[in-house]
Amino acid sequence: MDIAVVGLGLIGGSALRALAMAGHTLRGYDTDPATRATARTAAAQAPAAARWRVAGGLGEAVDGTELVVLAVPLPAVEEVLVDLVGTGYAGLVTDVTSVKAPVRALVAQRLHRPPTRLAGFVGGHPMTGAETTGFAAADPSRFTGCAWALCLEPDTSLADWLTLADLVTRLGARVVPTTADEHDRAVAAVSHVPHLLAAALAASVAGDPLALTLAAGSFRDGTRVAASPPALTASICGGNPAAVAPALAAVTAALAGATAALESPDPIRALRDWLAPGAAARTGWPPQPGSRLELPANPGALLRLGRAGGWVTAVAGDRRTVTAVRPPSD
Amino acid sequence: MDIAVVGLGLIGGSALRALAMAGHTLRGYDTDPATRATARTAAAQAPAAARWRVAGGLGEAVDGTELVVLAVPLPAVEEVLVDLVGTGYAGLVTDVTSVKAPVRALVAQRLHRPPTRLAGFVGGHPMTGAETTGFAAADPSRFTGCAWALCLEPDTSLADWLTLADLVTRLGARVVPTTADEHDRAVAAVSHVPHLLAAALAASVAGDPLALTLAAGSFRDGTRVAASPPALTASICGGNPAAVAPALAAVTAALAGATAALESPDPIRALRDWLAPGAAARTGWPPQPGSRLELPANPGALLRLGRAGGWVTAVAGDRRTVTAVRPPSD
Repeated sequence: MDIAVVGLGLIGGSALRALAMAGHTLRGYDTDPATRATARTAAAQAPAAARWRVAGGLGEAVDGTELVVLAVPLPAVEEVLVDLVGTGYAGLVTDVTSVKAPVRALVAQRLHRPPTRLAGFVGGHPMTGAETTGFAAADPSRFTGCAWALCLEPDTSLADWLTLADLVTRLGARVVPTTADEHDRAVAAVSHVPHLLAAALAASVAGDPLALTLAAGSFRDGTRVAASPPALTASICGGNPAAVAPALAAVTAALAGATAALESPDPIRALRDWLAPGAAARTGWPPQPGSRLELPANPGALLRLGRAGGWVTAVAGDRRTVTAVRPPSD
Repeated sequence: MDIAVVGLGLIGGSALRALAMAGHTLRGYDTDPATRATARTAAAQAPAAARWRVAGGLGEAVDGTELVVLAVPLPAVEEVLVDLVGTGYAGLVTDVTSVKAPVRALVAQRLHRPPTRLAGFVGGHPMTGAETTGFAAADPSRFTGCAWALCLEPDTSLADWLTLADLVTRLGARVVPTTADEHDRAVAAVSHVPHLLAAALAASVAGDPLALTLAAGSFRDGTRVAASPPALTASICGGNPAAVAPALAAVTAALAGATAALESPDPIRALRDWLAPGAAARTGWPPQPGSRLELPANPGALLRLGRAGGWVTAVAGDRRTVTAVRPPSD
């Protein structure tokens, strides 16, 4: 395919490299001239069969491409969509933003505003963030084995969805069919709340030199993502407040149970009972993959698969079935 | 030195191996016959110069040794102290338990009960737990670079403290002089609270297959220590309730700020401000070591060093000075 990646940070840069290595024709664009220069230098050093062009503007980047991958932070999505409509682009669009409902709403307002609905859209999210940032940290193998959510809404073209699923399974990703709302609720719990816990924990020992010297593995890992740029984490968590607030409330309610256990007459016994469900959940994670199966490529079957914890590993050539991995409990 | 290690789990086993490799004469004992058998088999496979004996009972383990290292979980400490007094042991005792004030209280009741005060005692804590357990996971290099708290109380013999500091700095550990109360307050924040956050986070997504499939790096690291055995974590956190409860309250109070930010008119901007202190604390951790200095080996200078974030790297042969690393802010 002829593909443009807009936004050449960690995820956009990795997608550019991975898609180029998979044999597609790639153009990249970033509003930052220094990032474009870095990406151009890297292109010259890449293997000849896996190079990309770096465009000087959005119009040049998307002109004649079949797919545009939006890889900009949430606060920049609206402006890029407006500019994209301005280019007259009429192909397929996907994104890799960490929250899906706000992007879906922006697409409805900007890209799909009646009477024009030139471009198709499939929301996506590869679950592979890191506390490193920028094109310099981009890695074409970043998506191997990673879960990549692809949103299948009532108004999503199944053909477009299958095109994306085919593309990213070939990068080694596990495609999880979901909806924007279900995605945002799930990642609030497993990604956004962990960032808030890490930040609160790190902040709680600032200015305590003895504690910072004694801090070891549990502090290191429990606070790792607190080192991410605050503006980026804020755009992710703050773009999903309706789902993050209740997910955080669930964790703080559980922590109130820990406080009660600490204040009970037998804190060791009370905490042992309180700790057991978390230990069971964590020792059982990641879930062992179930057996493979062929599924009809229809939205109902695909969304049931994702909800149950399964994923798609390949799309059949005739686009009528997909190869999937059953959730372990099936 | 002639040393006995009582309790051959992850930390006791690692101490046994590390001290044997450092040239000391080691005996190990564990109440569990299977653990003793594992430790015996491992001894036969160790290099001849770094072997240990496994004793069949506590009396046999400590008979004639100069130092006993107690490496049992907090709930087992009292019984071992009673048994140790029963053997008539009169040498030095240290421990590696994760909380220090309760052990100090038990030592006062059991080991130092007037009129007999046979054995000396220095409380210790190497900051090197892991979610793995048991002698099979023991590693002689476990203490290289790790912070090892050694308690220096008003009634601690400075000579005993320096003997321990000399011993463990030679294992590559950074000795942090502290008191039981200051230690317990600091580790509540950097170790015990992280265990509670990890457990609450892991439990919050149990039974949510989509979330468990989408979970990636921030969930993996944020919940890692939740996989520890609940009984062990409960004995650690539940043995330090007076310090853990306020440390946990500080974190949940901070999280209330995150909830307020999420509910504010501009959640992204509000969260960015809320996230900044945690990001600054985490990107500045671990603190860069300061320059080396010689310090007089007296309790006041040593405790000031530990409180300020410094540590001891060596004890002079005449025991009058120590080599220390200044805290970075000095």
